[in-house]
Amino acid sequence: MTVPDNPPVLLFGETYHHPNIFYRSGFLAPDPVVLVDHGGDDTVLWTSPMEAGRARKEARVGAVRSTEELDFAGVMQRVGSEQDAWSTLLELVCREAGLHSVRVDFDFPAICADHLRRQDVAVHPHADLYREERRIKTPDEVAWITTTEDAGMDALQRAIDVIAAADIKDGILWRDGRPLSGQDLVLTVESRLLELGCTTIDSICCGGPESADPHRATSEVLRVGLPIVLDIFPFHKATRYWGDMTRTVVRGTPPPEVTAMWDAVLEAQQAGLDAVRAGANGRDVHYACCEVFKQRGYGSLAKPYRDIKSEARFIHGTGHGLGLEIHEYPRVGDVDVTLEVGDVVTVEPGLYDPRFGGVRIEDLVVVTEDGCRNLTPIAKVFRLD
Amino acid sequence: MTVPDNPPVLLFGETYHHPNIFYRSGFLAPDPVVLVDHGGDDTVLWTSPMEAGRARKEARVGAVRSTEELDFAGVMQRVGSEQDAWSTLLELVCREAGLHSVRVDFDFPAICADHLRRQDVAVHPHADLYREERRIKTPDEVAWITTTEDAGMDALQRAIDVIAAADIKDGILWRDGRPLSGQDLVLTVESRLLELGCTTIDSICCGGPESADPHRATSEVLRVGLPIVLDIFPFHKATRYWGDMTRTVVRGTPPPEVTAMWDAVLEAQQAGLDAVRAGANGRDVHYACCEVFKQRGYGSLAKPYRDIKSEARFIHGTGHGLGLEIHEYPRVGDVDVTLEVGDVVTVEPGLYDPRFGGVRIEDLVVVTEDGCRNLTPIAKVFRLD
Repeated sequence: MTVPDNPPVLLFGETYHHPNIFYRSGFLAPDPVVLVDHGGDDTVLWTSPMEAGRARKEARVGAVRSTEELDFAGVMQRVGSEQDAWSTLLELVCREAGLHSVRVDFDFPAICADHLRRQDVAVHPHADLYREERRIKTPDEVAWITTTEDAGMDALQRAIDVIAAADIKDGILWRDGRPLSGQDLVLTVESRLLELGCTTIDSICCGGPESADPHRATSEVLRVGLPIVLDIFPFHKATRYWGDMTRTVVRGTPPPEVTAMWDAVLEAQQAGLDAVRAGANGRDVHYACCEVFKQRGYGSLAKPYRDIKSEARFIHGTGHGLGLEIHEYPRVGDVDVTLEVGDVVTVEPGLYDPRFGGVRIEDLVVVTEDGCRNLTPIAKVFRLD
Repeated sequence: MTVPDNPPVLLFGETYHHPNIFYRSGFLAPDPVVLVDHGGDDTVLWTSPMEAGRARKEARVGAVRSTEELDFAGVMQRVGSEQDAWSTLLELVCREAGLHSVRVDFDFPAICADHLRRQDVAVHPHADLYREERRIKTPDEVAWITTTEDAGMDALQRAIDVIAAADIKDGILWRDGRPLSGQDLVLTVESRLLELGCTTIDSICCGGPESADPHRATSEVLRVGLPIVLDIFPFHKATRYWGDMTRTVVRGTPPPEVTAMWDAVLEAQQAGLDAVRAGANGRDVHYACCEVFKQRGYGSLAKPYRDIKSEARFIHGTGHGLGLEIHEYPRVGDVDVTLEVGDVVTVEPGLYDPRFGGVRIEDLVVVTEDGCRNLTPIAKVFRLD
C-alpha cells in the first residue's frame, strides 16, 4: 500500500511536547510513544503495556498496540535502560509494519534515525510535516482557541483590576500593606486560569525597566508611571490549544517618552491588524508596523528600519501562528509568507526602552478572506487612573 | 583545544523542554537556542537578538551571543521560515566556532544532523550525554527537589482534607451540594501548588474503576468504598526541579479485595524502600516489590511474575529517577542498574483491578550509603473515616 515516494510517517516522542503526535492521536502520555501514520484513519499508536488500556479509550487512532507485543521489556533488559532502547523499539515497529522507508518530522532524534538507517530503513526528515494541515484551523480548532483566549482575557482582567485597585506609596504599587510584585499578578492570573480549565508554562507580568526584555517574566516591584506588560499565554488542559494576548497598563502619570511609545504601539498594532487578510504577505503586515514606528522615529530589527537611531526599538517580529504550539507556523515577521483563510496569528508589535521598559499590545486573530476576526476584544486602556 | 575523540557538545532546542540545555545554561526561553558546550565554564549560548539581553542577565554560561551576528534574519528570509532555518543556523554556529565534529544528545533532530553532515560537520549522537552528571544530585539539587516535594505534600494534604470532609449520598462523594469530581481535587491541588511557586503538566486525582489505568487523570465522580488515587507531580517554576508522590485513600468501607490490595501495596512499598541503598541493583528493588505481591497472589509484568493469574496486577515499574525531568535515568524496574549515592528515585508499586480501580503508594527518596532518605514523610492512611 505504501507509495514509494510518499512513505508512511513515523513519529516518536512523549505527546505533551510533540504536538504532531497529539495532533494525529489526541493522546497524552508522559513517556514516549510511537505513531505510524499511513494517512487518514490508518494510524497505529504503540504505547507501553501500562498505557495501552487508557490509549484504547482515549486515543483517536486506527489501532492501539502494546510494546509488550514486541517484548520491549526484553529489549530494555538487554540494553540496560529505557532511554537506550528507544531506537531498537523503532526498529522493531518498522519490522513489524514492514516499513523500509519512513518520513519523520523535525523532532525525530538523530540517534534514532542513525540506528534505523543501519537497519536498512530509509529515514526522510521533513521540517514541514503536518504544517499545512495544522496551520489552517478548522472551526472546531478556532472554537477551542477561542475558549482558551476567553479564559486568558478573564484572567488578564483580574490582573488589571488588581493593578487598578493598588495603593500608591513611595513610587511603587502596594496591596494589603506590602509591595505588589509581578509574581503576585502571575498568581492572580494563573489561579484564575486553572479555574477555567487552562494552565500555562509561564506568564509575563513585568513592569519598569525589567520589561524592556520582552520575555522577562516578572519584576520585584511595580513602579508608578512606568509601563506594566501583561502577556498571558494559556493553553486548555483538555484540548491543548493555546491562546495569547498582551496588554500594557500604567498607574500614575508616565513620562512623555512612555506615552509616545504607547501611542506609537497602538497605532502600529492597528496598522498591522488592518494589513491582515488572506493573500497578504506576512512581511507586509510586519512592515506595516515598522512603518508606523519609522514615522514616529523608532527603529526596528528589520533591515529597512535597522539604521533608525532611537532609544526605544521594535526588537521582535509582529506575530506568530498559534494552535497546539504557542509558536507555530506561520511567523509574521521579516519573511515572505502568504496568509491564508483559517490562519490564526498574533499581532503584537512592541517598543522597548531600557530606561523605562516595554510597551506591547497583542491580539489574536483568525485570517479571513477580506481581513481578520479578532479573538481578543478586551479593551486597550493604558492609563488606569 | 578540542580533543578529537571528545568533541564539544552542540545542543539545540527550546529550553522549557530540553533539560540538558537548561541544565547547562539555567536559561528558559520559548524559542530554540543553541548551546556549544566545551566543558566546564566554557559554554556559549546563542539566542535571538530579542532574548540576548535577558540571557546575559539570567543565563549561567561562559558567553551569550546573538544570532544577529550570523545574520539569522537574512537566513530566514532566504529559506522562507524560521522552522526551516534552524539547520542553517547550526551550520553557521559550527563554522563560527570552527567545529568540524560535535557530539549531540538524544533530542538532537535528525534533520539538523543530516544538514550538518552535508556541510562536513561530523555529528555523533549519544543517548547518555549528561546522564551521569544529572543522575547524581548535588546538595543544592536535593534541596530544590525537597522544596518541590514539600509543596506537593502540602497540596496533596488539601485534596485529602477535601475528601475527608466530603458528604456521602447515593454512593458517591459530594461537596457544596454537588458531586465531588476528580477535576475538583485537581483544582484544589494545582491552585495550592501555584501559591507555593510550583506548577505541573497534569495531576492524577482519580477514583474507582477509572483509576485502574495508572495515568488516567480524573474521574467524573468519586465512589464510596473505592480507592481514590492522588498522584501529584509538581515542578518548581524557578528551579524547574520536580517532585512526585502518590497516596491512595478511600471513604466508607472498601470491599475486601480492595483492602487486600492496600495491605499488599503498603507491604510491597516498604519492601522496595528497604531494598534501596547505594550498590543495590534497581531490579532487585523492583523484584522486592514483585515478591511481596507474589506471596499475596498478585502477578506483575516482569517475567518471573508474569504467569501469576490475578485480577489485580502490578503493571508498571517500581520507580524512576527524577530531577529536571519527571522521568529520568535511572529507572527502577526490570533492568539492571546499580543505584548510587545521590540518586533521587521514586518507589511506587501499585495494584490495578479493572473492577475496583488502582492502589498506589509513592515516596521519593535520596539514595544513601546504607539506605535512603525519604523526602515524602506524609502519612500513609487509606481509610479516611
